[in-house]
Amino acid sequence: MNVTEEYMRIDIGNSLDTVASPGMSSDTLDSLDSQVDAIHTTIEPKIHDNSFGYAALNILSPEETKQLLDFTEHFSDFSNVLTIGIGGSALGSATLSTSLGLSGHYVLDNIDPSANLNILTDIDFTDTVVNIVSLSGSTIETISNFLVVRDHMNKQNIDWTSQTFVTTSGNGTLYNLSNKYDLPLLPFPESIPGRFSALSSVSLAPIAILGGSVEEILKGAQNGFDSLSTSIYNSPPYAYGAIASELFNLGITSNSLMPYSEHLETFAEWFAQLWSESLGKDGIGQIPLRAMGATDQHSQLQLYRAGKRNLMVTFIDVVDHQTELNIPHPEFEDFDYLSNLPLETLLRTELQTTEASLAEAGCPSIRIELDQINPRSIGELLHGCMASCILFAELQGINGFDQPAVEWGKQALKDILTGKNSSESSSTQNKNSRWIKK
Amino acid sequence: MNVTEEYMRIDIGNSLDTVASPGMSSDTLDSLDSQVDAIHTTIEPKIHDNSFGYAALNILSPEETKQLLDFTEHFSDFSNVLTIGIGGSALGSATLSTSLGLSGHYVLDNIDPSANLNILTDIDFTDTVVNIVSLSGSTIETISNFLVVRDHMNKQNIDWTSQTFVTTSGNGTLYNLSNKYDLPLLPFPESIPGRFSALSSVSLAPIAILGGSVEEILKGAQNGFDSLSTSIYNSPPYAYGAIASELFNLGITSNSLMPYSEHLETFAEWFAQLWSESLGKDGIGQIPLRAMGATDQHSQLQLYRAGKRNLMVTFIDVVDHQTELNIPHPEFEDFDYLSNLPLETLLRTELQTTEASLAEAGCPSIRIELDQINPRSIGELLHGCMASCILFAELQGINGFDQPAVEWGKQALKDILTGKNSSESSSTQNKNSRWIKK
Repeated sequence: MNVTEEYMRIDIGNSLDTVASPGMSSDTLDSLDSQVDAIHTTIEPKIHDNSFGYAALNILSPEETKQLLDFTEHFSDFSNVLTIGIGGSALGSATLSTSLGLSGHYVLDNIDPSANLNILTDIDFTDTVVNIVSLSGSTIETISNFLVVRDHMNKQNIDWTSQTFVTTSGNGTLYNLSNKYDLPLLPFPESIPGRFSALSSVSLAPIAILGGSVEEILKGAQNGFDSLSTSIYNSPPYAYGAIASELFNLGITSNSLMPYSEHLETFAEWFAQLWSESLGKDGIGQIPLRAMGATDQHSQLQLYRAGKRNLMVTFIDVVDHQTELNIPHPEFEDFDYLSNLPLETLLRTELQTTEASLAEAGCPSIRIELDQINPRSIGELLHGCMASCILFAELQGINGFDQPAVEWGKQALKDILTGKNSSESSSTQNKNSRWIKK
Repeated sequence: MNVTEEYMRIDIGNSLDTVASPGMSSDTLDSLDSQVDAIHTTIEPKIHDNSFGYAALNILSPEETKQLLDFTEHFSDFSNVLTIGIGGSALGSATLSTSLGLSGHYVLDNIDPSANLNILTDIDFTDTVVNIVSLSGSTIETISNFLVVRDHMNKQNIDWTSQTFVTTSGNGTLYNLSNKYDLPLLPFPESIPGRFSALSSVSLAPIAILGGSVEEILKGAQNGFDSLSTSIYNSPPYAYGAIASELFNLGITSNSLMPYSEHLETFAEWFAQLWSESLGKDGIGQIPLRAMGATDQHSQLQLYRAGKRNLMVTFIDVVDHQTELNIPHPEFEDFDYLSNLPLETLLRTELQTTEASLAEAGCPSIRIELDQINPRSIGELLHGCMASCILFAELQGINGFDQPAVEWGKQALKDILTGKNSSESSSTQNKNSRWIKK
């Protein structure tokens, strides 16, 4: 396999108007190419200047990487990491650990009492580093879960202060906590919103502790960076973002991410957050769906083919699954053709036929192809998706880096819990219920 | 808690046009009520006659239940069940076992080589019953996985024939297999499509072996059955289906199921299959999304509030999470209000505020409320969703019980694997690729 082959590539053939309806015409592609040229010229200096959000596309320097690894070295004797965070504070590291098959990563990213109690019971805290992650340092769910975990560790007579570190920015509650108890503090880069932090120290720290290769992930991210160019015709990330945006303009309001690899299940959640929070504003926004090939051929495919023509599918094909598992010879004549077939071949052929089946029905799709799932390819994939998303936002003229619509609910929650009368809290409590009961 | 309270109920207040836009007017509700009256009158005899699909709303009789329990009794000494199936053949039992917290249920519902190898390695086959499930008896993925599992058991010198049973209909390959090796055979009811089999013996058999209470699940299903009436005003399942269908007519093309309980994560997948395959046809079909409260407030909420107004949210609220886990006293003054707060209260308050936040933005939502997650409530919930789905299909004038659009891909797959030249296989292989590479 030569070097060029290591780069992620995409097949846009089934998004063209020769196949799909709606689909991309040659003229539209050329016009997008010009727009992307102009946009890239404005994005590039913002990346270099570490401007808010755009900074996510920068790659950690060798010095920054060394600092990070020196930081995590302190915890290298532990087998497990418990990440306490929610949204972008948890999804980046969870995506990396699950896609790379790193064991020992626990994540507390919800406040469900029975699920959380189960997680706490499962963990051997004597062998677990706790990482509390919050950009603001005052996320209610994260603070709550930290308090629960600390109490649990205290009851087990474990000195929580010796095996906990904090990832935060500014001087919020978590910052004060780290000062008071002398907990190691990893700065949450102030120029990167949570959902764009997958390739920053925020997400890489747990991975380093769990034995993942940060260097390889960053090499992949660098490949992603190197794929950004002024032309969509040789930039897979920009081509993907530009086509998704243009298809959205043509009525494709949903985008189903359908990897054919169970390793990418959490990645699909990460992508959904990236796409939703970055692009869902000003009445714009492509709704991300999560599907899993081949399983969801038996669940979603009927709808994708025969429902409204308002959806595109993004396939992810992995060329080499790195696992030899062949189907043993069947004793039933009608299944002779399965004899000794690698499961991987069956899986990839199902992707091919599903893709063709959507094309036959005129439903647009794009295929992302990776050689393998490994630190390098995942680094490139995550970088590429962030670049695609930023380009989509630029083409639509929206701010991809804020999330103003979630503030109302946060305010309402705080006001209710503190007993404060506000327009938010009273709207919540005066809700106009209409119950239907048997 | 009195008996009436045990029934599932729904709050449709935030789907009304006094709150949401689009929303339901009183006139529309009355008109739907009349239509549902007429439809219920036609559905009811079909249920009684065990007509195809409608039969799913029937509840197993005491005799049928006894037969099932006698069947599974044979395997009661085993701690684990491995279900080999895909789509509706796996999702029903997986939903029941995960929502009820029954341990020991493994599911092979994909053909990913490395994920499957991991599952095989995890299982103690000396203590595991294998259940092969396929309506037709010839599902490629299921046959493939069975062959892999059998080989694995043989290599461990385990007599697979003594701990395997088959769930199928007709006389396909699995039927022949069960004859040849004298494997116990559980009939897949021919009147029920796979995705409607969650309350049939197909899904209940593994649950019985794992120690779940089939009787309680069926009592809940009976409650669901008893909730079906000629008026939406006292039938939560019909009200839900009717409003979702009418909102679809008004442009609400997506439906995000957002339970505030981690126990319902697999349930959301089941619902997505039910909704997609049943309703996605003839250019119709509401796209089901899966979200998890409170986590996805930090992921999807921005889009739901501020994106296109083409989406409704279905909340599921659990009144009693049956787990006491209070937040310990925080040492930070600004979080004093969390002191001793039950995590359950925080979770439910977040549901309330998120619901109000969507209402404030005019996004329609419906709340389904359950007292607890237990066999009875889950039985009623599953029954209710199937009834809602059937009603939605009737109102739209589509056949909710077939899935014709998936046949093309199945044919293409088989033709490619057997080397047959057909229009499907050649469409797949002559695909018009256009690669974008760095």
